Parts: sequence; C-alpha cells; structure tokens
Amino acid sequence: MPTYTAPTKDMQFVLHDVLKVTEAKIPGYEDLEPDFTSAILEEAGKLTSEVLAPLNAVGDKEGCRLENGVVYTPTGFKAAFDQVREGGWTGLDMPEQYGGQGMPYVMGTAVGEMFSAANQAFTMYQGLTHGAASAILAHGTDAQKDTYLPKMTSCEWTGTMNLTEPHCGTDLGLMRTKAAPQDDGSYKITGQKIFISSGEHDMADNIIHLVLAKIEGGPEGIKGVSLFIVPKFIVNEDGSLGARNGVSVGSIEEKMGIHGNSTCVMNYDDATGYLLGTEHKGMRAMFTMMNEARLGVGMQGLAQADVAYQNALAYAHDRLQGRAVTGSEHPDKPADPLIVHPDIRRSLMDQKSFAEGARAFILWGATMIDAAHRSEDKDADGLVSLLTPVIKGFLTDVGYDMTVKAQQVYGGHGYIEEWGMSQFTRDARIAMIYEGANGVQALDLVGRKLAQDGGKHVMAFFDLVKSFCKDNADLNEEYARDFIEPLKAASKDLQAAGMYFMQNGMKNPNNALAGSNDFMHMFGHVCLGLMWAMMGKASTEALANGTSDATFHETKLATGRYYMARQLPATALHLTRIQSGADTVMALDAANF
Amino acid sequence: MPTYTAPTKDMQFVLHDVLKVTEAKIPGYEDLEPDFTSAILEEAGKLTSEVLAPLNAVGDKEGCRLENGVVYTPTGFKAAFDQVREGGWTGLDMPEQYGGQGMPYVMGTAVGEMFSAANQAFTMYQGLTHGAASAILAHGTDAQKDTYLPKMTSCEWTGTMNLTEPHCGTDLGLMRTKAAPQDDGSYKITGQKIFISSGEHDMADNIIHLVLAKIEGGPEGIKGVSLFIVPKFIVNEDGSLGARNGVSVGSIEEKMGIHGNSTCVMNYDDATGYLLGTEHKGMRAMFTMMNEARLGVGMQGLAQADVAYQNALAYAHDRLQGRAVTGSEHPDKPADPLIVHPDIRRSLMDQKSFAEGARAFILWGATMIDAAHRSEDKDADGLVSLLTPVIKGFLTDVGYDMTVKAQQVYGGHGYIEEWGMSQFTRDARIAMIYEGANGVQALDLVGRKLAQDGGKHVMAFFDLVKSFCKDNADLNEEYARDFIEPLKAASKDLQAAGMYFMQNGMKNPNNALAGSNDFMHMFGHVCLGLMWAMMGKASTEALANGTSDATFHETKLATGRYYMARQLPATALHLTRIQSGADTVMALDAANF
Repeated sequence: MPTYTAPTKDMQFVLHDVLKVTEAKIPGYEDLEPDFTSAILEEAGKLTSEVLAPLNAVGDKEGCRLENGVVYTPTGFKAAFDQVREGGWTGLDMPEQYGGQGMPYVMGTAVGEMFSAANQAFTMYQGLTHGAASAILAHGTDAQKDTYLPKMTSCEWTGTMNLTEPHCGTDLGLMRTKAAPQDDGSYKITGQKIFISSGEHDMADNIIHLVLAKIEGGPEGIKGVSLFIVPKFIVNEDGSLGARNGVSVGSIEEKMGIHGNSTCVMNYDDATGYLLGTEHKGMRAMFTMMNEARLGVGMQGLAQADVAYQNALAYAHDRLQGRAVTGSEHPDKPADPLIVHPDIRRSLMDQKSFAEGARAFILWGATMIDAAHRSEDKDADGLVSLLTPVIKGFLTDVGYDMTVKAQQVYGGHGYIEEWGMSQFTRDARIAMIYEGANGVQALDLVGRKLAQDGGKHVMAFFDLVKSFCKDNADLNEEYARDFIEPLKAASKDLQAAGMYFMQNGMKNPNNALAGSNDFMHMFGHVCLGLMWAMMGKASTEALANGTSDATFHETKLATGRYYMARQLPATALHLTRIQSGADTVMALDAANF
Repeated sequence: MPTYTAPTKDMQFVLHDVLKVTEAKIPGYEDLEPDFTSAILEEAGKLTSEVLAPLNAVGDKEGCRLENGVVYTPTGFKAAFDQVREGGWTGLDMPEQYGGQGMPYVMGTAVGEMFSAANQAFTMYQGLTHGAASAILAHGTDAQKDTYLPKMTSCEWTGTMNLTEPHCGTDLGLMRTKAAPQDDGSYKITGQKIFISSGEHDMADNIIHLVLAKIEGGPEGIKGVSLFIVPKFIVNEDGSLGARNGVSVGSIEEKMGIHGNSTCVMNYDDATGYLLGTEHKGMRAMFTMMNEARLGVGMQGLAQADVAYQNALAYAHDRLQGRAVTGSEHPDKPADPLIVHPDIRRSLMDQKSFAEGARAFILWGATMIDAAHRSEDKDADGLVSLLTPVIKGFLTDVGYDMTVKAQQVYGGHGYIEEWGMSQFTRDARIAMIYEGANGVQALDLVGRKLAQDGGKHVMAFFDLVKSFCKDNADLNEEYARDFIEPLKAASKDLQAAGMYFMQNGMKNPNNALAGSNDFMHMFGHVCLGLMWAMMGKASTEALANGTSDATFHETKLATGRYYMARQLPATALHLTRIQSGADTVMALDAANF
C-alpha cells in the first residue's frame, strides 16, 4: 500500500529561500514567517499522511454508490471530511468575514498540493466548493455572499460547477440548458449537465450548484450564457434549509480513476436558480476564477507525480534485483536494490527534478495570483494569465507521464491494483482533461495569451529570464555553466518559436496552432528551467554562506543540473517541430485519414 | 462503444509493395501471393471485427472470476474461442505435422495484430499457448512433441509460461521453485509463481504449464535453472487425460487492464514435471523463442495504438465543437467537427504515422525471423536479435503514449469507461512491463546486443540504411528532401550515440547505461524513419507508374512526410541526453534522493 509524506521541507525552501515571501511586499505575506508557515505545513502534512492517504485506495476500490437518488461516498470519507472541516482547512484562504482564515492563496496552494497528493478524489469535494465560493465571492450580491459563503467556507455546504452538457464541452455556445425568468426575480432552470464532480453525495447538508444556462430570448451562442446559483435545498431567509429544489442526480459515471469522487449527471427540472453576476455574462463570471482553478489542476499533476515518485523511490530502495554494473554495492545481500541501476536512476531523477521544479513553478504562480488580488498588481495578473495554460497543460501532461514512470519502476507489481501505483496514473489522467483539455490550454496560450495586451506579458517573461541570467551570471563559474547557459539557450528557442508564430501565423493561423502543443511544452520547460536556476542560486548561496544543511543544498544542485542537462534541451525538438509549420499537419483531406 | 476495422489494405501494401514478400526467396514465401494473403487477412479481419472486438469491453467489465479453484472467463469468451479454434487460426504458423497450417511467421504476425487490436486479453490465451508450444517444438523430445503439440496447435489445450516469483522478476537467479528428481525420470516441482497469464481458465481441456525451477543440488543462481513441462492433467500414454496434477491457482490478480485474461498466482505442490531440454539450461530454452515473444509484445503496442486511433478518428469526425480558425468548414452545422482543429490533427497524425510505421517495422521484423528460421540466415537472425529490444521497448512505450493521445481526443468522454477509450490505455500499459520491462529491453540493447558478434549487426543496420539512402537519393527531388535527408540525419545521430558509448562506456559502463532508454528510443525512430522511407519509395513509384489508387499513395506520402518532419527529429534530443553522460544521472547518493 502506498504512503505519502508531505514535502514540507521542500516547500519551506521554495517559500523562504527561493521566493522569499516575507520580502515580497504583498499584503498578508508579512505574516508568512518560516515558523508560521512551517507550523501550518507540518500540521497539514500530518493530516494528509495519516488521515487522507490511507483512504485513497479505499476510495478507488469502493467508489461512490447511487441508491434512490442518494450518493454514498466511500467508507471513511465522511469522518475524514469532518476532521478536515474541524481543522479549519477548508477555509484557509477564504476571507475571515465568512469564517475563513484569510491566508494568502500561496498557503492554500501549498496545503492543497498535500491534500491532492494524499487523496485527489477526496480533495475534490472541497476543491469544487472553493471554486464555487470564489465565484460567489467575486460576483455575488452581499445577500448572496452572506447566505452561502459562511457555510461553503466551512464546507458544511459543498459546491459544484456545471458547465458541460452531453453535446458540448469546450464549445459552451452550443449549450441547451434554459433559464426562465420568474416574477420574483428568480429563474427556473431546466436541462441536463454531465461530468459534475461532487454533484451529489452524503457529506454535506446542502450542495450549492453553479449552473451555466441560457436565459430565454437572450443572444445566440456563448454571448447568451448566464450563471446561476441553484441550491439542492432552497435556503430560507433565516438561513435554515427549506424545500428540496428541482435538481437530481441522474446517474454516476464509471470512470478510469478518481472513483472516490462522485461524477454525476445532473438533471435540472424547473429548478429554482438565482442569477449570479450579470445577465448573459455567465462565461465571464465563471472564468474570473479560471487562473486559480487551472493552477489548482496543474497542481494535481504535480501532486500525483510526487506521491507516485515517493513510492517508486521507496520500492527502488527495497526491491533487490540484479547487480550494479560497476560492481555489487551490497554483496552481503542476494542482489542489489533497484536504485543502483542507471536506467532506474534516470527515471527517478526525471521524476524528482520534475516534482521539485513544478512545485516551485506552482508556488511562484500562486504568489502572482496573490499579488494580482492583494496588491492589484496588473503586471503580475498579466504574467500569471499568460502562464496559467502552461501550468495547467504542461504540468498535467508531464505529471501524468511521471506517474507512468513511477509505476514502471515497480515492474509487474505496478500493474496490480493492490500495489496502488495504477491508481496514481488513473487519477492523474483526468487532470489532462478537465478544466479545459490540454489542447484547449495550448490554444489559449498561442491563440490568445501570447498576443494579449500587445504581447506585453510574454515580453515581460523574456525580460525576467534575461535579467535573471544577467544578474546571476557571475555567481560562480560552475553555476553559470550548469544553470545559466542552458536556461539562456532554452529561452532563445522559445523566443524563436514566438518569432516563427509572428512571422507565419498571420498569413495562416494554422502555422501557429499546429505548433501550439509544442509551444506549451517548451514554455513549460523554460519555466522549470527558470525555477531550477532560481533554486540553484538559492542553494549555491546557502552553501557559500556555510549552511548547516549542506547535503540538502548539494542534492538540490545535483537535481537541478540533471534537469538542465537532460530535460531542458527538449526545447530544441519542440522548436524544430514548430518551425516545420502546418503543412505536414494539415496536408490530408479529412476524408483521407 | 469502440469498433475495430482490420487494416488489411495497409498490410497488403506493406507485404507486397514494400517488403515484396514473394520475391524474398524465403521458403514458404513463394505462396504469399497477394490474392492468397488477402483472403487470409480479410477472413481474419472479419472474425476480429465481428466476434472478438465486441467482446473486448465485456471482458474488461466482467473480468475473470475464481470459484473453488476454477477460473471462469467472461461471458462469450468460450464460444468465441471455439470459433477461433474451428477456423484453424490458432495453428496458422505451426507445422503441418502437428495440425498447423505451416504458414510463415509473418502471416501469423499480421493476423496477430488484428487479434490483439480487437481483444488483447482474449488473444493472450492463444498467444501464451503459441509461446509454450514453440518452446516444446524447439526443445522437446519427439515424444513430448507428439504428446503436446497437436492439442496445443489446435488450442484444445492451452499453455502458460511460469517465470516470475514474488521476490524475483527480471533477476531469475533468485528463483526458489524447486525440482526434485524422481526415479522415473520425472521431477516433483514445488514453489509459487506469480503473474501467470492464462494460468487457469475454463476454455480448454488441459493446460500445459512451462515452469522454470531449480533442480536440487544444481549450480547457484541463473545457471541452475531448468525448464519443465507441468500439465494440469497428467497425459496418459494413449493421450487421454489422467490424474489432476499438483498445480493449483492461488488467486487471480486485480489488474489495471487486460481484465479478460486470468493472471494467476500458481502454486506447485509436488507437481509432476518433465524436463524440457537440458538440465540447468532452462533460461536458454525459455529464451530461444524470445525474439518472437518480444516482437509479439511490440505488436501489442502497435495494435492498441491502432484501434485507439481508429476510434479517435471516428470521434474527431463526429463530434462538433468549435469552428476552424481559418473559417467554418461546415457553416450548415452548429459547429465544425473536431478534425478541423490543427492540434487535433497533430494528435491524429502522430497516431496514424506511428501505427503505419510500426506495422511495417513489425512485419519487416517478422520476415527476418522467417529468414532466420526457414533459410537459416544468420545475418537476419543477428539483425532481428539486435532490433528485438527496439521493437518491444520502443513500440510499447510509444504505443501506450498513442493510446493516451487517442483518449485525449475524446475529452471528458475519454475518461468514462463506457466509451471504451480508457480500456485501450489500461490494456496497452502492460505491454511496457511484461516479457521484460522496457528498462530491461534498453539494457539488453545497449549492454548486450550492440556489441554482439563484435558489433557486426549494428554495423549491418547502418550499412542497410546507408545503402538505402544512396540507392534512392535520385528517386526524385522531393522524395530525397522529405525522406532521404531526414533519415540520413537521424541515422547520423544514432551513429554518434553508438560512438559515444564506445568511447565512454569502457571507462565507465554507466555512461552507456544512463543513455540506454534514449538509445532505444532513437533507434526506434530511425527504424520507423527507414520504414517510412521504404513506404515513401513504394508510393512514389506507384504514383510514377500511374497507380489506379493515387489517393492511397498520396496519403501514404503525406503521412510519411509528417513522421519525418515532426517525429524523426527526436533523435537529436536523445543524442543530447546521451552525450550528457552518466554524471548527472548518478550524482546523488542513494540516501539523498
């Protein structure tokens, strides 16, 4: 059975040695002293390791069960959810006004990684609630906020997001769910939604559905979509629960993974709904929280990769098989452990260097979201908007690959469900799909974000990399060779790709979009390269300053060197593909495939 | 529900236009006229599409069931197995002497791809039987052959291969299963084997287990391992079935995929076994058939990729979502089909160009096995031995990735079991693991095969590529630019990697083994590049000769150009990684991971 150990030390390193959060001049960050963040991370680590991780396999095996309209969650989920609620974890970064703890988003993100790694299916119940609550916080009336947010902050009530319908996922303009205005200002919602995570379950007193629907007589397509609050039980004026609303679960889906989360078909039949935000501006309201939601999914890619890596590493230490090619390292044992073998090391280093780089990337992204929200820093907002599809698409694509590599370390046992490695890959698979499939992320990046505000944000990113390289080229010779030079080369590749799009995408947009996936991946590599350069700098300085934890920092440098030497050069391949243009991609008539 | 259409036309193209089998001067190949092979392929295609494919999801959902020592296969498997037996498909390439049809292995391979694509779990029952029968054919006494082969050829009896034990998979020297010699020349076998595919089931009258065990008092480690025939029911002298032997199924494993195949823990308790081949030479006997078995697994990688691709393509045609960026292609419909989007095309072209290239590679490999066996062609034997780990490791790694891409085309529906795309990835996952995990394939390639016979075979491969490039550089200008030049560049990368190993692997073997996975992949790309160059040549010539099927050949050329432009350049990245050496891979102390 797999286990999970929260990477608290690594998170502390990123927060304090690399991102230097207390110096960031973001309101609220002044409280993030190392002792304070450590206390939170350790406590969350304990909860996730001891309570959530042991339920991960249970959730996978049992799944959710629908009986007479009620969805039953797996054994132990309810008690664990109580424990999470009692600990105040569900409102960590929600406003104190509504019962939250008002901490920065970066702390919610660090804790969120642990929760997701320990039990992704379980964590989604609170994750969706957080998303729905954030939308109400941003767009609700004061009355709506007062009605829903306290209970959603505490997760006494949970939330859902209802976008997809059987015939439309990405293209929400095709939506059929209708909203009929009523005399009292409410609406009657009718239609079917699918793939609704946490759509129905037995762990909360009420479920607050956010539902996209078209108000009758409104504009065609995506411009006629509005967002509604549709509670499972109508909330009375005094806050007590009233009548059951016209929303019911049609079925629960049998999925490849995240079995512990109930993915529901939801039927709305003249259900009472309340407009959230402005009429016909539902997409805007739904997507205000998009950067956060997508960063959260990118984090899931990292989280599954990390927990899978931890277990692959333990197995590589334990499993005796063969002998080191350079001579037995444990002649006293019947064989050497797997970890002596170079190809096993390669796989472990791929996983380790990805997980640590991705963690820094995610936390860096979260500080930008905090800067955008807490300091109204428009540059940070622009940069994180640019990077959001990279975080989501790249980290979930690669995160999934890493779970596959971790599973592979187990050999045949990796394929047997009892060992738990299959679940990591099956659970990680969804993150490439939901919250905008990764092809859509790549399209968003190349088709929209690159040119946003006249290309200002991508130029800012390149400037940032350039300044970093310039400022740190003299740190020491080895560092310059192992970190700065590879980062410069990769960044140059990325710029060349951007240039190719500019020069060729105008005359034929296919020349840009045929390279969108490659561009997203090369951008991800450059970001992780930058993260490793930043971490390498922090560790180089720590060692120069005579740190008491030299092993940690030397390990960090060695891991970074691996990434720079073995992963970052992928940018050149992506550039080659991009520069081959759209011709070979679009050559065939659709009928001739 | 997914469907399967056998790629008979593409197979005919490879057999006749590319490999020109009837001209190959291999005994038996003179019969392989287009009409003859077409008849077989069409018949097999019908059976696989109509009978086996519809049972694929059934097998996945129901799995196998163990009750009182009996394993029940999924609904419909037994009747389908009868149909397969009656059609003579199980003995297609077995000797006529034992009731087979005596066809070349290449035909068994082509038909095998269809069977695997339609239903991998089902096909494994006959696949394991074929493997066990081949071992008996190669190493059995005449009496053993007469006793077992007729019934195994017809699959009235099925077979298994018993290697793995709980504590040893790759490192079989750690084996504990014992064989105690008896006065009558037989042995008593005692021990436990795990991961035994088709180990017990209800579709055959008898099951012939081939079991590796150590004869008491023999040499230590791998040199003391012998191979035994252990039938489930002892076979009487007259061929009738006698007493039940001391072999029983302990449990069946719950796996990530191939649920329709019973993967058993087998317990041997003083079971009667008969030595197959020579004492203590069990590994050699087991591995005589290794090239075939591994090529067969590589084929599974291709097969799952192809069936997944077929369904992704159909979905991309059907699913309306969004509009083409260059202007709507179906303004009459509410949206354009997915296939208009460049990133969907990229994914489909990745899949198509892989599947067709892999098919040619597999069939080319099969002709070499035929040449080795039927013509005793030692060069062909050496070359296919070199390429076997590439076929197995590269095609299953990439084949798996392709099933993931196909699943991604479905968006959220790809994650729902009902749509069937998840099964393709879950089933394809095993091929990277069994028959030697892919890390072991890479080790075999770099650690053993490269230097075999003084490097003769890899030199022969390079000569072959070189000659091909030289001979066809003048075919026409476009062909030279699109096919020959990229192949030359990729082959040069591969040679440079080999050179790096020669120069650096001697002083430290880790320098070679840290690059083994990259080498296997770059070798795979060069092989597929060669296949595309060969197919491109055939299609170029067909077009020059005024073929009546210009669309087929133009599509083939366009698909090949895609591979050459977008996939083959990966060799440069692999070379970069290899040339970075072992230092970053091996830098960490095991304790510091």
